[in-house]
Amino acid sequence: MSKKNNQDKLIIFALGGVGEIGKNMYVVQHGNDIVVVDAGLKFPEEDMLGIDIVIPDISYLTENRDKVRGILVTHGHEDHIGALPYVLKHLNVPVYSTKLTLGLIEGKLKEAGLLGETKRILINADSEVQLGSIKASFFKTNHSIPDSVGVCLDTPEGRVVHTGDFKFDHTPVNDQYADLQRIAEIGSQGVLALLSDSTNAERPGFTPSESMIGANFEDIFRKASQRIVVATFASNVHRIQQVINAAMATKRKIAVIGRSMVNVVSIASDLGYLEIPEGMIIEPDEVNKMAADRVVVLSTGSQGEPMSALTRMARSTHRKVDILPGDTVIIAATPIPGNEKYVGRTVDELFRLGANVIYGPGSVSGVHVSGHGSQEELKLMLNLIKPKYFIPIHGEYRMLRHHALLGESVGVEKENIFLLDNGDTVEFQGGTARKGNKVAAGNVLIDGLGVGDVGNIVLRDRKLLSQDGILVVVVTLSKQDGTILSGPDIISRGFVYVRESEGLLEEANRIVTSTLHKLMNDKVNEWASLKTNVKDALGRFLYEQTRRRPMILPIIMEV
Amino acid sequence: MSKKNNQDKLIIFALGGVGEIGKNMYVVQHGNDIVVVDAGLKFPEEDMLGIDIVIPDISYLTENRDKVRGILVTHGHEDHIGALPYVLKHLNVPVYSTKLTLGLIEGKLKEAGLLGETKRILINADSEVQLGSIKASFFKTNHSIPDSVGVCLDTPEGRVVHTGDFKFDHTPVNDQYADLQRIAEIGSQGVLALLSDSTNAERPGFTPSESMIGANFEDIFRKASQRIVVATFASNVHRIQQVINAAMATKRKIAVIGRSMVNVVSIASDLGYLEIPEGMIIEPDEVNKMAADRVVVLSTGSQGEPMSALTRMARSTHRKVDILPGDTVIIAATPIPGNEKYVGRTVDELFRLGANVIYGPGSVSGVHVSGHGSQEELKLMLNLIKPKYFIPIHGEYRMLRHHALLGESVGVEKENIFLLDNGDTVEFQGGTARKGNKVAAGNVLIDGLGVGDVGNIVLRDRKLLSQDGILVVVVTLSKQDGTILSGPDIISRGFVYVRESEGLLEEANRIVTSTLHKLMNDKVNEWASLKTNVKDALGRFLYEQTRRRPMILPIIMEV
Repeated sequence: MSKKNNQDKLIIFALGGVGEIGKNMYVVQHGNDIVVVDAGLKFPEEDMLGIDIVIPDISYLTENRDKVRGILVTHGHEDHIGALPYVLKHLNVPVYSTKLTLGLIEGKLKEAGLLGETKRILINADSEVQLGSIKASFFKTNHSIPDSVGVCLDTPEGRVVHTGDFKFDHTPVNDQYADLQRIAEIGSQGVLALLSDSTNAERPGFTPSESMIGANFEDIFRKASQRIVVATFASNVHRIQQVINAAMATKRKIAVIGRSMVNVVSIASDLGYLEIPEGMIIEPDEVNKMAADRVVVLSTGSQGEPMSALTRMARSTHRKVDILPGDTVIIAATPIPGNEKYVGRTVDELFRLGANVIYGPGSVSGVHVSGHGSQEELKLMLNLIKPKYFIPIHGEYRMLRHHALLGESVGVEKENIFLLDNGDTVEFQGGTARKGNKVAAGNVLIDGLGVGDVGNIVLRDRKLLSQDGILVVVVTLSKQDGTILSGPDIISRGFVYVRESEGLLEEANRIVTSTLHKLMNDKVNEWASLKTNVKDALGRFLYEQTRRRPMILPIIMEV
Repeated sequence: MSKKNNQDKLIIFALGGVGEIGKNMYVVQHGNDIVVVDAGLKFPEEDMLGIDIVIPDISYLTENRDKVRGILVTHGHEDHIGALPYVLKHLNVPVYSTKLTLGLIEGKLKEAGLLGETKRILINADSEVQLGSIKASFFKTNHSIPDSVGVCLDTPEGRVVHTGDFKFDHTPVNDQYADLQRIAEIGSQGVLALLSDSTNAERPGFTPSESMIGANFEDIFRKASQRIVVATFASNVHRIQQVINAAMATKRKIAVIGRSMVNVVSIASDLGYLEIPEGMIIEPDEVNKMAADRVVVLSTGSQGEPMSALTRMARSTHRKVDILPGDTVIIAATPIPGNEKYVGRTVDELFRLGANVIYGPGSVSGVHVSGHGSQEELKLMLNLIKPKYFIPIHGEYRMLRHHALLGESVGVEKENIFLLDNGDTVEFQGGTARKGNKVAAGNVLIDGLGVGDVGNIVLRDRKLLSQDGILVVVVTLSKQDGTILSGPDIISRGFVYVRESEGLLEEANRIVTSTLHKLMNDKVNEWASLKTNVKDALGRFLYEQTRRRPMILPIIMEV
């Protein structure tokens, strides 16, 4: 593909994932060879009204499409694979990942109609892939989904290591150990730059082991005299395995409920990542026919998502499963920031139905641990890899900052640590690094089928509309003499409850009418002036009367 | 006022505060005598778009206005006093409270123009007040604002105790001890019913003492080589006192910033609840003139509120105080659920400015403790009061439920514990209790000057508008023959960015036009049918093209 050139620089940057949680996408470029690590989505911020998901702006990649050698995917979480269907539509490059990750990616590509045209390459922890001048190899990590890997990129300028998401779990479920020996070996051979997961950089100590939860599940299952419902992230295959194990131990069958849960259980068991004993899974329809103490329902909805299976059960609107007094509901997850209220509401509703609900921080409930390493684990990774340069990734700015301090504390030179925003580049040449030019990076908002057609103006209007609603003022004028032929009519939505505010709207109508008459007497007849004057007069009146500022939309028709 | 009547029942209910955090308002009625405890506001839920605050529906009280003997206020937090200006407008009854609480209430009444006409009665922990057949007395508690009390109501049916908000802090700031002896005495004399604060009923153990923070403040202050900014709740006078003490000890002056902080510091120091050494307070203008290591800025904004002083400093838009690299910022508060993202964003911005930010859960940061007692303290209160009946109050349903279990665990009979919704009544007669009829209770939404004029329809419209925006379709028809004289014109707001979607809107226009022509050919000319058909055809088209469902507002003018 490309030739080694002594002038070629190594450039590293993020198109998503730094200064935010989500839409992870990192780029390592040497000369004419670009390697992308991950292509994730982000869930919308609270001010992105009506937006479904957010993906990275990939214009740098599409502008350099002939240089992109491939996308390496570290694991199958949405914030690492969720943008692939959008990215691959505009950038047909090979995708490299391990088996389970590839299974999950293929499900997405199938839905998007991109399966046929996408080159998918299965790798494992022993694979080596030559991508132009960059040689990629991999190492096993432990995370809250099986088959996760870190990436080691050998470039002519030196070795770059990307950890992916990780924790160090010394008693993992299903033998999903981080490969400490390999990681140490990579470190001992010399690493130019480390990009490492900052999610839990604010948390002191170690993240507890996933296997701690298994014992607690079994304990809870033994004490439960009726049905058990367990809600967790669908992608947490280890957690699901532990639900299965506890169900086995207590002679219960499992019904799987919720679209993503059904999907992941099917893919993970087909690919051998879930050990499900014969006859263990029952159909949701069978739940009501079985004795209550023989059933576990494995469900989505651990974030209190309004349309999820658990939320429906809590509201007694699920078609197949009712929560009955005495049932046990386990919410084996922590609310993602912003979801606390939804989860709280679901817990309240479940309690009102008489269920025994086990929820809350893992340290209290014992049914959840994080998939990301805490400070001591982050230091362990830094000490294993011993990089010359360090770029904290995967986190809000405060997390990156804490991670940078951890880097300093284990001996990385302060000036060798780069805190980046998306699009900030670091250039390496001759063993030294410096900040380079910024590349285009940002949020692409997806609303329904629209990709990027909702921008700041649309969002600002949605915000305005959501606060105080809208008043539409319509009037028909005569083309000949500019007199009012019909209207003004005022129609409001989301402003006031009309029946209780008739007087207000009548008065508003009088103000519009007199404003128009005055303007006509003054021979003002450009539409722009008419509209501005109506808007101002009406806005002033409504603010005085209500202290609200609805959007005002004057429409003038001419016949 | 009223005479004792053997048939009179004692009735207890909440108009706000159970099944929610906020808008506390509890009612104790015996015969013709109604005593109200607290009148608080609640901040809007995330689905109450555009709403400023929420207050209780007090129609039960206004319908029984001649029976209401007074409002007893336990302490000066917004969720206990914030509804008073609205309530007193419709219900002119005396308000009883301790000195600081009264000072804060009077500030509100002044603003609302109600100070003159409201009878305000200062009480202290030794006061006794006869309210018809009900005798009220009080007991000192400890909470995150000084001068908090619990209420003891002796009624002909027995004694009712309302704890207000409390913790048991054995080393409080400014000697604000809970009066254990008096509480024990109340209990030993026999208590029919206890209403007790459930806020921290989910938390095991004890809540740490406020005084723990003082030492940490001093430690941080000593290490800081530049400016210090402390953000906390304005009402947390004890916390403010500890900032003052630490500033004293480290020879720094204090600038007070933010409207509510200035207000509380002024009221609390005037009334003797804050000890501020002479010359300690400086004007915000002086901050820039002083040496950086001689200044503390005491600020609002601990919740990351968009318009608050700290948020402005973090965005470098505060008029008087800039954050400089090396400054120390202490956020001495925990985010209220729903505010985590705002606080996180503020922390990020402060870090980006180079500040050293101390934040996070009190157990990590050491600069915040809760003002509410945890499980062991709630049990202590139950064991001191030894009530026959127990009504957990002040909390979401899950908190009330946990509190009920704590009640059972210390020996309250399960059937003597009432989990109430707002409006649910408990009736006591002859020493036994049962659930009575429900009274009117609910949310009154305040938006600008409007009280209760925004209801479900308006909120539903705001929700719709916020998701996908609005399309207004206007057409002018001839009165004579129904032909189209002008239009159809389509104007959209919050739907798509128009410049990028011209084709879509042109096609939408064609669809509206052909729908109208078809209807006219079919001689359909009732406006309702025209509008429905246009709405359906356009809605279908837009959903197919965009998977969005904007609000569609067809407007037909006739000339």
